[in-house]
Amino acid sequence: MRRWNGWGDDALGMTLNDNAIAMLTERVGAGHKVEDASLESVLAQVPPSPLAGQHGVDISPRARYSVALGESYPDWIKKRFGVAVPVPDGVVYPETSAEVRHWLDRAGEQGWQVIPYGGGTSVAGHLDCPAGSRPVLSLNLSRMTRLLHLDQGSQLATLGAGAPGPVLEAQLRAHGYTLGHFPQSFEYSTVGGWVVTRSSGQQSLRYGRIEQLFAGGRFETPIGTLELPTFPASSAGPDLRELVLGSEGRFGVLTEAVMRVSRLPEHESFHALFFPDWERAEAAVRELVRAKLPLSMLRLSNAIETLTNLTLAGHADLIRWLERYLGWRGCPVGDKCMLMLGVSADRRSAAQALASARRLSRQHGGVYIGRRMGDKWRDNRFKGPYLRNTLWEHGYAADTIETAVDWPRVKPLMQAMEQAARDAFAEDGERVHAFTHLSHLYSQGSSIYSTFVYRIAPGGFAPNLERWRRYKARVSEAIVSHGGTISHQHGVGSDHAPYLPAEKGPLGMATLAELCRHFDPQGIMNPGKLLQDPPR
Amino acid sequence: MRRWNGWGDDALGMTLNDNAIAMLTERVGAGHKVEDASLESVLAQVPPSPLAGQHGVDISPRARYSVALGESYPDWIKKRFGVAVPVPDGVVYPETSAEVRHWLDRAGEQGWQVIPYGGGTSVAGHLDCPAGSRPVLSLNLSRMTRLLHLDQGSQLATLGAGAPGPVLEAQLRAHGYTLGHFPQSFEYSTVGGWVVTRSSGQQSLRYGRIEQLFAGGRFETPIGTLELPTFPASSAGPDLRELVLGSEGRFGVLTEAVMRVSRLPEHESFHALFFPDWERAEAAVRELVRAKLPLSMLRLSNAIETLTNLTLAGHADLIRWLERYLGWRGCPVGDKCMLMLGVSADRRSAAQALASARRLSRQHGGVYIGRRMGDKWRDNRFKGPYLRNTLWEHGYAADTIETAVDWPRVKPLMQAMEQAARDAFAEDGERVHAFTHLSHLYSQGSSIYSTFVYRIAPGGFAPNLERWRRYKARVSEAIVSHGGTISHQHGVGSDHAPYLPAEKGPLGMATLAELCRHFDPQGIMNPGKLLQDPPR
Repeated sequence: MRRWNGWGDDALGMTLNDNAIAMLTERVGAGHKVEDASLESVLAQVPPSPLAGQHGVDISPRARYSVALGESYPDWIKKRFGVAVPVPDGVVYPETSAEVRHWLDRAGEQGWQVIPYGGGTSVAGHLDCPAGSRPVLSLNLSRMTRLLHLDQGSQLATLGAGAPGPVLEAQLRAHGYTLGHFPQSFEYSTVGGWVVTRSSGQQSLRYGRIEQLFAGGRFETPIGTLELPTFPASSAGPDLRELVLGSEGRFGVLTEAVMRVSRLPEHESFHALFFPDWERAEAAVRELVRAKLPLSMLRLSNAIETLTNLTLAGHADLIRWLERYLGWRGCPVGDKCMLMLGVSADRRSAAQALASARRLSRQHGGVYIGRRMGDKWRDNRFKGPYLRNTLWEHGYAADTIETAVDWPRVKPLMQAMEQAARDAFAEDGERVHAFTHLSHLYSQGSSIYSTFVYRIAPGGFAPNLERWRRYKARVSEAIVSHGGTISHQHGVGSDHAPYLPAEKGPLGMATLAELCRHFDPQGIMNPGKLLQDPPR
Repeated sequence: MRRWNGWGDDALGMTLNDNAIAMLTERVGAGHKVEDASLESVLAQVPPSPLAGQHGVDISPRARYSVALGESYPDWIKKRFGVAVPVPDGVVYPETSAEVRHWLDRAGEQGWQVIPYGGGTSVAGHLDCPAGSRPVLSLNLSRMTRLLHLDQGSQLATLGAGAPGPVLEAQLRAHGYTLGHFPQSFEYSTVGGWVVTRSSGQQSLRYGRIEQLFAGGRFETPIGTLELPTFPASSAGPDLRELVLGSEGRFGVLTEAVMRVSRLPEHESFHALFFPDWERAEAAVRELVRAKLPLSMLRLSNAIETLTNLTLAGHADLIRWLERYLGWRGCPVGDKCMLMLGVSADRRSAAQALASARRLSRQHGGVYIGRRMGDKWRDNRFKGPYLRNTLWEHGYAADTIETAVDWPRVKPLMQAMEQAARDAFAEDGERVHAFTHLSHLYSQGSSIYSTFVYRIAPGGFAPNLERWRRYKARVSEAIVSHGGTISHQHGVGSDHAPYLPAEKGPLGMATLAELCRHFDPQGIMNPGKLLQDPPR
């Protein structure tokens, strides 16, 4: 069963080995363990609903609380510390676009506000419930998960927008297809959520970002239905799909998504290479991506992340062997950076691409160490978030912040993000273990994905929120001042909304506000997300 | 010097060989030659300008007429028959974004309407000048052609939006880079025009459509400046670049375009293959594009286009040899379809991709005939439009219509487009020589590009316009009824505006109208383009 106050299925736990705990103790100090609130205690705080008696609306505290929070750090500590939070006043479970239409119309008539709910995996506060006087209805799309149509001739699959990764892939795989979209949240996040937050998956190098996979569909807005027909490409005016992508529930609700799928690849494998230092590793990946080799993944860890990953992996024998081998091949152990590389193609193309990538990497001092670590990565590709549970149980908090920036600023921004966090914690007399990888590479630049592990603060919810706020602001300011986007793959939500004007500019923000007013003249849709203030 | 009433430089002419003329005579009848109007006669019809005396505004008839028409068939016959047309009342030649800003502000204050002008190559009526009472100012961007900045670290080039293909490529090539965007109009069309009409180039398979190449820039709108910063990718809300792409002068003027450029490829070559029939050829190209082989171009001609191209090429010896060779290799001569295939990469990748493509084509009966025809294609890649001049001199009109549609409808729509034209001409007692190729291939579907050659009608401008209107409407209706987009690469303009609601839907059209009102509250920008009626 899904954990109510942590990541994932409660039948699955990850353990931290002794070396990992020793590393954390050395780097940030002994963990500060806290006691979790019980689900009963938080449910007891849910107030009575003004929607009581409304036909078809679930007003149970359990249903309402379950859609009130996502997986951001603030949401996480609200659950762990059992803080009372505003929750939607009712939840509905539409099964069709017509039912979504019905609830939007009803909300408009009644003056309710509406928050669409997909998989609840937002890490940017997309589910924050306003505390105002208007009733809030949660549109839970968890019953819209079906593969409605598969057009094999055009390789287009029409899916219920609430389909989470495994449900979606299982239905496609039965026909020999894959969407190829694998964000780390894959187990719970939904295709509709991916589209409206502009998500990107681990193998986007082959399959593209969600923008490239989203071909059309059905979008229900307060003022009517936007039907997006499918074309392979078009020059017929502005592309209206782009108003759905990134709309984050402000303009309407995506109910059916037509997605570009692919035949399952004949061959897929993941491979590890090590580089002596960041400079050479970055030069290699930049060249790899610009050579347009048909790879499916490039994922470059900086030296601290490489060390962290090896420590977490915990196979002392493997690591000893690896370090001996790297030393023998001329790759010094200290600053080594690991590159994980994926190929997904027909056997011949995959072999050629891998060979070309190895050849090119060698010119930058890269040492290929084979598939063993790649296999391990693949087996654990969605398990990273489970470690957050384990860390919390050991008294540590974990958070991630990501961006994307043009190549000349990748290294400076990566360093600035880690340093900004260290500085923010230092003011508190604390330390943070910060490490980073590049997960989505482009000719122009790269995403930067940093993880921050630090001790839980004593004193409960408020000091922990304060600690997070300070460091999050510092890192976000570093991103903005280096010309990075406030999010490469997690969207804006509430948490990133203050930083959006820096990249959209005044006219851009006014345009987004105008689109809100256009699609949602009564201002009922997902208030406060994307745009900080209700644009009216 | 550029021809005033036909395509291209008047120092360059194409000839039609006897076989080609015989083919046309057999297929549509003897050409009906007409006498062209003189430039003097059309300039004499230009009325006095209400902008006389405005500082910095060129009101000469020559300047005004030269920006009044593009290269669509209606525009072509207006020039050839010397018809009086509404022309802008003045032309300005801004050299900077600030000067564009100045003219937009001035137009707003004075109640003038504004038509931006790039290379004048529109084939969809993007330059149509309204005949109303408000003065019309043409913003001619031909002095904004410089490479303003080249950031080699991120492979981003900032260009004046008025830079035409050769000027742009020459500046990039001096540094070892290419944009890789080669539409057939390359010699005259501009980077700004490519962006605002969502253009696609011949090698989009490698370099992407203009949407993928456009990273950001500066967009001057009547209500202010939209600055689009560059990110390799972003999930921070709707992508505002997408409102510039396809805006066709309705929302503002792109003044500086930041484009993603690439190092010049180590190797580039073009190769021809022949398939016994359309079915096998289509199956092969579908598989080629879905295999994601690193090719730079796929261009498949149907049997009539293949025959036409071979006849035009006119090398009787080559064709005899080719047909004998194809027969010996088991590829029957009658229905053969030619595939032109490009590779642009490092030598090794290019060789591997070509070998894979040949192997895969062989499985579908494809016969590889080497580089000779590919070299010929490359040499003439931008010369196709020159033939239109020659055909006209022989008494024939040539026009093209293009779309894109999902794979299951590619062949039916291709046939329907050609048949719709044949039917429309038959009602007139005329015949049309119609042939088609697929030039931009996607996993989901393909563009369809049809050429129509028919006799000039006797009786001057009116019957020729009427003949075109009837056939254009029939073919456009075939496109819409088969679920194709009204344009894959030429945009909407005036000519396609009536068909836009079929794909955007009522809410989509209302949204575009709302965006017009937002960016252009006084309705001064490029009236009648994209949206048929002024949206107010």
